[in-house]
Amino acid sequence: MTYKQSGVDIDAGDEMVDLIRPLVERTYTPRVMGLYGGFAGMFRLDFAEKLLRRNYQDPVLVGCTDGVGTKLKVAFMLNKVDTVGIDLVAMNVNDLICCGAEPLFFLDYLGVGKLAPRRMAEILKGVSDGCVESCCALLGGETAEMPDFYKSDEFDMAGFAVGVVERRKIIDGLDVMPGDVAVALASSGLHSNGYGLARRVIFERAGYGPDDRPPELDGHCVGQQMLIPTRIYVRAVMDILGRYKVKKAVKTMAHITGGGLPGNLPRVLPEGLTVKIKRDGWAMPKIFDLIEKKGPVDRDEMYRVFNMGVGFVMVVSPASVEPIMARLRQMGERCWKLGVVKPGGPDLQWA
Amino acid sequence: MTYKQSGVDIDAGDEMVDLIRPLVERTYTPRVMGLYGGFAGMFRLDFAEKLLRRNYQDPVLVGCTDGVGTKLKVAFMLNKVDTVGIDLVAMNVNDLICCGAEPLFFLDYLGVGKLAPRRMAEILKGVSDGCVESCCALLGGETAEMPDFYKSDEFDMAGFAVGVVERRKIIDGLDVMPGDVAVALASSGLHSNGYGLARRVIFERAGYGPDDRPPELDGHCVGQQMLIPTRIYVRAVMDILGRYKVKKAVKTMAHITGGGLPGNLPRVLPEGLTVKIKRDGWAMPKIFDLIEKKGPVDRDEMYRVFNMGVGFVMVVSPASVEPIMARLRQMGERCWKLGVVKPGGPDLQWA
Repeated sequence: MTYKQSGVDIDAGDEMVDLIRPLVERTYTPRVMGLYGGFAGMFRLDFAEKLLRRNYQDPVLVGCTDGVGTKLKVAFMLNKVDTVGIDLVAMNVNDLICCGAEPLFFLDYLGVGKLAPRRMAEILKGVSDGCVESCCALLGGETAEMPDFYKSDEFDMAGFAVGVVERRKIIDGLDVMPGDVAVALASSGLHSNGYGLARRVIFERAGYGPDDRPPELDGHCVGQQMLIPTRIYVRAVMDILGRYKVKKAVKTMAHITGGGLPGNLPRVLPEGLTVKIKRDGWAMPKIFDLIEKKGPVDRDEMYRVFNMGVGFVMVVSPASVEPIMARLRQMGERCWKLGVVKPGGPDLQWA
Repeated sequence: MTYKQSGVDIDAGDEMVDLIRPLVERTYTPRVMGLYGGFAGMFRLDFAEKLLRRNYQDPVLVGCTDGVGTKLKVAFMLNKVDTVGIDLVAMNVNDLICCGAEPLFFLDYLGVGKLAPRRMAEILKGVSDGCVESCCALLGGETAEMPDFYKSDEFDMAGFAVGVVERRKIIDGLDVMPGDVAVALASSGLHSNGYGLARRVIFERAGYGPDDRPPELDGHCVGQQMLIPTRIYVRAVMDILGRYKVKKAVKTMAHITGGGLPGNLPRVLPEGLTVKIKRDGWAMPKIFDLIEKKGPVDRDEMYRVFNMGVGFVMVVSPASVEPIMARLRQMGERCWKLGVVKPGGPDLQWA
């Protein structure tokens, strides 16, 4: 009896390693050392020679991990797996930058039912795109063939990101004061949260197939709309932080993930402060209206589960609001004044 | 309709976060900053104040990721999930140290069918134990409840480790010379590789149940023997490297994982060199004999799939062999001379 007979194909693994190599190497920066295919990836901090964009005196490493959740099921339904890797990177690097950290490198884990090299390369294309978009080196990864765990054409994925921040520049939210302004950065859609509820409502309650075009979506396919990649805010946020190095214009930041605005914004504010938000004071992607209506889902529950159009929040000093919003728009972000910091909390206030 | 009705229980998540908190915090070192529960974990490099064991001039970060594979199925069969976390940490940190890196921190991802807080705490106990054993801070983690992906009492897990090595001390194997000696460090059993084949042979071909005690195992339960945690070599290897800082006594190292000795040892040797190994020249755990006999599995295939009793290999200069082996034994490792470096390759030579 052989290993191959037991269901694990080492040759397919080797073929995959060759196929994904260019996707990995296109993310390499001069900071990446060592060779593709080693036991572990190596990354020079290189403070002396300034390969890092900024110079660090007292560097703090920041690490986080996240997956994509059941958004993957939508990718399987549409048989389109080349963008969930962008979601995977986004979910991690958008968390990472909240404390002011600059993303350095990323690693991915794929658990698959069957190791089909071309499909793996499609998946890795998204991871590679996300890494390029967020200026992260794809330092390594693992693909585990686990036929007893996953259906042959399905998989789960986990990502890990590491960044660095100068210790005295860590954004911890302690400077937030009443009168500061919460600036919303638009999400691209559902991002990667709430798919348990979204799929149940859209595919079961409403009975849509992934290729259906409900009138509420202006002729767009519902599956495609659900698969739009999570927006990556790294370039925009890093640009703003780079422009306000001395003045502490950016007080705190929140990546709006599971739990929505109520679950993510209060946790980055000091005790005794909250944000007063004009609810529905912005145009949100129509997928949210569709879910609310077809559920039906209570409006409060919608806000607790979904990002409702707000992918990221920057709380900034009043004097910096207009220049920061102008620069964000130059960088291609849609943004608006979400609300103002007030005494209160821990719950958000709704106007 | 609510999120909870769609199968995701946010309250259970909160309960889990409270339950695992002490398991996470016991791994914290003075280098860990920030608080449990933030968007991302923070870790001070702190070169100036020497919180790090060694001082770094030109630090290189090393990152790697791995899972446990289908060893998890054995844990499910025995309903004993409190040690697979040790395997998870081991698979990562044993890779990390091969280039001479000191492990700094670890993050874990758990994809679960149902988020049962007490079971999650059991799983995390193993991760926490592995981190303590390998001097790693458990900086963060993610638990994703994905009922459409995993059976309610099953899960997959991925780990991610980051370490640091001084650039000019990176162990790259380029100094290996004929006459250098490969020292084997004993494995504790199957470790975390080859379970596709091992489970097929033991539970299907041989028809054993996990609680059976085949005579070949001297009265031990076959399931328990298959679940012995992967040995973590961090303390022993770090100790040796710390003792031979100036003299380059340790030339290269290999973690023996999937692919066995033939798949892992040649890749850390320079071109044109190989190791001549006296095959079967050591006592290996009896689980390997059982698999070989019950498969039957060809002896060559056994060496290509399993570690065959060798969990880690250090290639050292001839003059250092005896003192290094003596110190490894003091540190509790079972070790022996596996073979000698010879011209040849890329395949290993067998005596």
